[in-house]
Amino acid sequence: MNNLGIVKRNITRADKAAVEKLSRFGVATIHEAMGRVGLMKPYMRPIYNEARICGTAVTVLLQPGDNWMMHVAAEQLQPGDVAVAACTTDNADGFFGDLLATSFQARGAVGLIIDGGVRDVKDLTEMNFPVFSKAIHAKGTIKATLGSVNVPVVCAGAQVNPGDVVIADIDGVVVVPAAIAQKVADAAEAREANEGDKRAIFASGVLGLDYYKMREGLAKAGLRYVD
Amino acid sequence: MNNLGIVKRNITRADKAAVEKLSRFGVATIHEAMGRVGLMKPYMRPIYNEARICGTAVTVLLQPGDNWMMHVAAEQLQPGDVAVAACTTDNADGFFGDLLATSFQARGAVGLIIDGGVRDVKDLTEMNFPVFSKAIHAKGTIKATLGSVNVPVVCAGAQVNPGDVVIADIDGVVVVPAAIAQKVADAAEAREANEGDKRAIFASGVLGLDYYKMREGLAKAGLRYVD
Amino acid sequence: MNNLGIVKRNITRADKAAVEKLSRFGVATIHEAMGRVGLMKPYMRPIYNEARICGTAVTVLLQPGDNWMMHVAAEQLQPGDVAVAACTTDNADGFFGDLLATSFQARGAVGLIIDGGVRDVKDLTEMNFPVFSKAIHAKGTIKATLGSVNVPVVCAGAQVNPGDVVIADIDGVVVVPAAIAQKVADAAEAREANEGDKRAIFASGVLGLDYYKMREGLAKAGLRYVD
Amino acid sequence: MNNLGIVKRNITRADKAAVEKLSRFGVATIHEAMGRVGLMKPYMRPIYNEARICGTAVTVLLQPGDNWMMHVAAEQLQPGDVAVAACTTDNADGFFGDLLATSFQARGAVGLIIDGGVRDVKDLTEMNFPVFSKAIHAKGTIKATLGSVNVPVVCAGAQVNPGDVVIADIDGVVVVPAAIAQKVADAAEAREANEGDKRAIFASGVLGLDYYKMREGLAKAGLRYVD
Amino acid sequence: MNNLGIVKRNITRADKAAVEKLSRFGVATIHEAMGRVGLMKPYMRPIYNEARICGTAVTVLLQPGDNWMMHVAAEQLQPGDVAVAACTTDNADGFFGDLLATSFQARGAVGLIIDGGVRDVKDLTEMNFPVFSKAIHAKGTIKATLGSVNVPVVCAGAQVNPGDVVIADIDGVVVVPAAIAQKVADAAEAREANEGDKRAIFASGVLGLDYYKMREGLAKAGLRYVD
Amino acid sequence: MNNLGIVKRNITRADKAAVEKLSRFGVATIHEAMGRVGLMKPYMRPIYNEARICGTAVTVLLQPGDNWMMHVAAEQLQPGDVAVAACTTDNADGFFGDLLATSFQARGAVGLIIDGGVRDVKDLTEMNFPVFSKAIHAKGTIKATLGSVNVPVVCAGAQVNPGDVVIADIDGVVVVPAAIAQKVADAAEAREANEGDKRAIFASGVLGLDYYKMREGLAKAGLRYVD
Repeated sequence: MNNLGIVKRNITRADKAAVEKLSRFGVATIHEAMGRVGLMKPYMRPIYNEARICGTAVTVLLQPGDNWMMHVAAEQLQPGDVAVAACTTDNADGFFGDLLATSFQARGAVGLIIDGGVRDVKDLTEMNFPVFSKAIHAKGTIKATLGSVNVPVVCAGAQVNPGDVVIADIDGVVVVPAAIAQKVADAAEAREANEGDKRAIFASGVLGLDYYKMREGLAKAGLRYVD
Repeated sequence: MNNLGIVKRNITRADKAAVEKLSRFGVATIHEAMGRVGLMKPYMRPIYNEARICGTAVTVLLQPGDNWMMHVAAEQLQPGDVAVAACTTDNADGFFGDLLATSFQARGAVGLIIDGGVRDVKDLTEMNFPVFSKAIHAKGTIKATLGSVNVPVVCAGAQVNPGDVVIADIDGVVVVPAAIAQKVADAAEAREANEGDKRAIFASGVLGLDYYKMREGLAKAGLRYVD
Repeated sequence: MNNLGIVKRNITRADKAAVEKLSRFGVATIHEAMGRVGLMKPYMRPIYNEARICGTAVTVLLQPGDNWMMHVAAEQLQPGDVAVAACTTDNADGFFGDLLATSFQARGAVGLIIDGGVRDVKDLTEMNFPVFSKAIHAKGTIKATLGSVNVPVVCAGAQVNPGDVVIADIDGVVVVPAAIAQKVADAAEAREANEGDKRAIFASGVLGLDYYKMREGLAKAGLRYVD
Repeated sequence: MNNLGIVKRNITRADKAAVEKLSRFGVATIHEAMGRVGLMKPYMRPIYNEARICGTAVTVLLQPGDNWMMHVAAEQLQPGDVAVAACTTDNADGFFGDLLATSFQARGAVGLIIDGGVRDVKDLTEMNFPVFSKAIHAKGTIKATLGSVNVPVVCAGAQVNPGDVVIADIDGVVVVPAAIAQKVADAAEAREANEGDKRAIFASGVLGLDYYKMREGLAKAGLRYVD
Repeated sequence: MNNLGIVKRNITRADKAAVEKLSRFGVATIHEAMGRVGLMKPYMRPIYNEARICGTAVTVLLQPGDNWMMHVAAEQLQPGDVAVAACTTDNADGFFGDLLATSFQARGAVGLIIDGGVRDVKDLTEMNFPVFSKAIHAKGTIKATLGSVNVPVVCAGAQVNPGDVVIADIDGVVVVPAAIAQKVADAAEAREANEGDKRAIFASGVLGLDYYKMREGLAKAGLRYVD
Repeated sequence: MNNLGIVKRNITRADKAAVEKLSRFGVATIHEAMGRVGLMKPYMRPIYNEARICGTAVTVLLQPGDNWMMHVAAEQLQPGDVAVAACTTDNADGFFGDLLATSFQARGAVGLIIDGGVRDVKDLTEMNFPVFSKAIHAKGTIKATLGSVNVPVVCAGAQVNPGDVVIADIDGVVVVPAAIAQKVADAAEAREANEGDKRAIFASGVLGLDYYKMREGLAKAGLRYVD
């Protein structure tokens, strides 16, 4: 009757070309291209500043203090996947460390997004295995209760379905549904097209007030300039 | 009847010499020199460790999820100013990114203090544009509702008036009212004068207990040494 | 009737050899070797990423906004000690800065763990004086009310007795009671012995599911694989 | 390309009989009957202790500081519905007050679940209009930006689809997917069947250790009784 | 040079008639009448549900863990005043209890707003002495360090000047500057004038969409109704 | 090597007469009588306002999401005991509900203090079973991992040993070590002796400034009265 105790083996991953294209853009741009939705909460932070992820989601639903499902998930990971782990309740234990990272990396996984804690951060950094998490915590976990793999999950406030594209950088984490990955990638590209021009214009001293023609709208809204 | 929808153009900035002198001291020292007041809350953190700001405040009052006033503020910025942005309610959206930073930098602004979120952090870091914020968040904003520019604001728990000196470093953010900027700068200087000496003394093994002559006070307060 | 206003001078420090041995292992490993207890809460973070501490605890019980006892504690520090400071209530003021750090370093202390704030973080980093704290905050403190030194304290959720071994790294802070320091060090050593092997095995693509023989247990618990 | 700016008029509501049956059980029981999933985060609290809701979800996706969509949602409410409001970002403004409640009540709505703030709490209490919210906050909102009505939302950590059954009481808020509402209701009934008996047994002094036959399992797990 | 160690005896209290008029309206209404500014943060909660305050502010600036200034403030209280206490840093200690409340009540004070903790809540409730605070905490305080009385303070995110009108009810706390108290009271009255009518209209089933003529605006913004 | 997997059967409970005497005083008074130590953090709140507990502690160390040890603890409870439950990590799951409460009540337990969540709050309230907790949460728990009973625990920031007296009321929770229970009870009695007198004095208009002779100290500290 529920989503616990299930491992879905065949999932439809987003189109590789779309994933590759999305990997060229930042999280802020992609989120704008989707209409300002799809972001995880800002408490999700990289374990090292340069961490960056773009991959297809293999989802994991964990139980508090229990990382059994991380091992089950490892087997479902394919090259280019990112593990996205949620928990049935708020819990910051260290569900993930250097050995699981070694295993994930051996499977070709490109990173981990976890609404929980991680540990062995020094090792993970040296391995160049990017992780975005809610916490860093040495607290160990057990292997006793079933969760699931590749069911829809809510991770840090965002709905994630298996196969969705997940992009993470220093600005945060965004989820792009597989079905619209190509469209979002195209929209992101369009958005970025004239960014360089804009930067040059603003660098030259032109104001957004003029460039975006905001003065009339502001006046209409009642803005008053006083001395 | 209220402070919304107003842009004050002529503000009295703190004396340039005082600002320059304050720029030589750390936030902790300046806050002590003012009598332990004027600090923002410690959740305000730099987006990169080396970030440092000392400038005169152009204040911005934002509405949640709306950065219209940032564009209005840009025009009011003069060389040496720091934008200090508060919001009418708690909101961590990404009000500020690389394009606004380019514009602010073109105006000569020396940084941003914002009780909200910022994005494009990688770009801001590469631009060497220092920001102290409550959050990093890719979430975009709209341009629909008026706030104000150069009205008194409460930012991260501190009262800020336009023209006040705001100093920020890794230890936090402090606000020095324009009227006492010179006095505070002088007091900070006096405070630092013998810091080098003190360091040498403590490095030699002299205890604060003796240097500050605390033993009598402690005994009087009832401190008991037991074995 | 209580623990306030007391300085215990003679404390039994953990065996030096055990401390030395513990210094070779990470916090996650030591916490596992103790049976997954003894960790401080994950809000305790290093002021710089490379910070690492392993020493015997001199405990400090502070009053809010008051660092008098830090000066009293300085005198009780011996080479190899780490100061562990708790407060009678939640308080993030900057109880500790560069001068106290100079004094602590002169006494041979190897670091500070504080359930409160610190300041002068740039100086502390340059001095290579490792601190793990709840906050960075420029807020200064007074010297007016007695706390205690070398009484049992609760620091960030962990019980710490004077003389206990405290180990801190990027993964967190763990407390090892002096009486079991050698046993824990031995258990940590045993735990690490085959870590290198395991890493190689997982790197070769062997799954934890097989290596730890989890498949039967998972099936028994009712895990279902679906397509 | 996204879910913003959409109002879905025809939604499939859970079967009325199932909803009625679910209304007889508490949130804790229903959540157990579903296999311990479906709960919102515990920060969602009733505005008065006796508040209780069981209805079919009309979902609302709000923008920060903007309650335009609440008015749009009112028109979609049918007798027995509960409005479930999420926001595109964390925001505690007072999106809802006595006038909207009057309107909702006139439509036959049985309550509101909102991952945000509400106000006019005294009026809402007198009207017997149950609300579960993240905050109580007088802060007013504007009507400027589109969100959506009856799209899937994540509310306080739980996925909610239009038409799902939402049950709320002092223990929290649980979401039952429409498709399994009858099954969950039946499972909840089965769970409750012998609760009265169990209470009598435990009241007589029988221990859970014996009633649930835990002693063997505990011994096997290594539990030691010491004196 | 700063605001510490000062007691201002003569303050200009808001006009009595304006205060009396403001006392007739709720916090949400007054905040709207001021243009949606002036609110304290929503973590400020009443110690009992029926608590309500409307009075002129006598401000108190406390030091962490120290309630000396509460006694100094008592002497400055006049009938109709409300004490508004801020602290130089975040601190939830129990600065206020039944004895101070007895003293405040004897002076004619109508309540306390404190960005900190209170205790003896059972007594305060029985005395009908309304308090809005950040926390309830038994933690006692000392009397050792000077703060100030009747200086401008920032309390729970709101700027409060001595003499301002402060209104608090279950929806929160709002600050009305003394100079505009009458204007705000008039605006609040105007706002409330047709509230009864509106309630009747909405109760009859008329939608806000029609009453406020929102349909055109929504369509223009791009709202799409789908089936 | 550690405290997990242990049930201590014989514990030394605080003297019954001392417990009885302590039950006459409030938490604030007892905490003052102990010298302002022993309080749990203020996030511990009663599930109903009238809840009050005074009893001898049977401690429980829980694992996250697991309430197995609550059943083990039930057997160790004697009339007059209060269960005090800590967890090896932060976790707000609903570890305790009406059936366990029935069992605890049958054993003569007088309440529960838990640094975690509880559920069935309506039933617990009707049963008059007082609980002080960190959260109310319907989330169910499993029975899979050993914790301990009657080992020393840290609960909500306070050290609790089995047999200690724990007193809880609306102001918070305080722990009195068994060895000093009588002394603390006597000190609390002395403290309360003249409270009635003091209340009368303050009610008559005498100020604390005069009653406690604070004026001289304030002047000495530099307090300035200005007009």
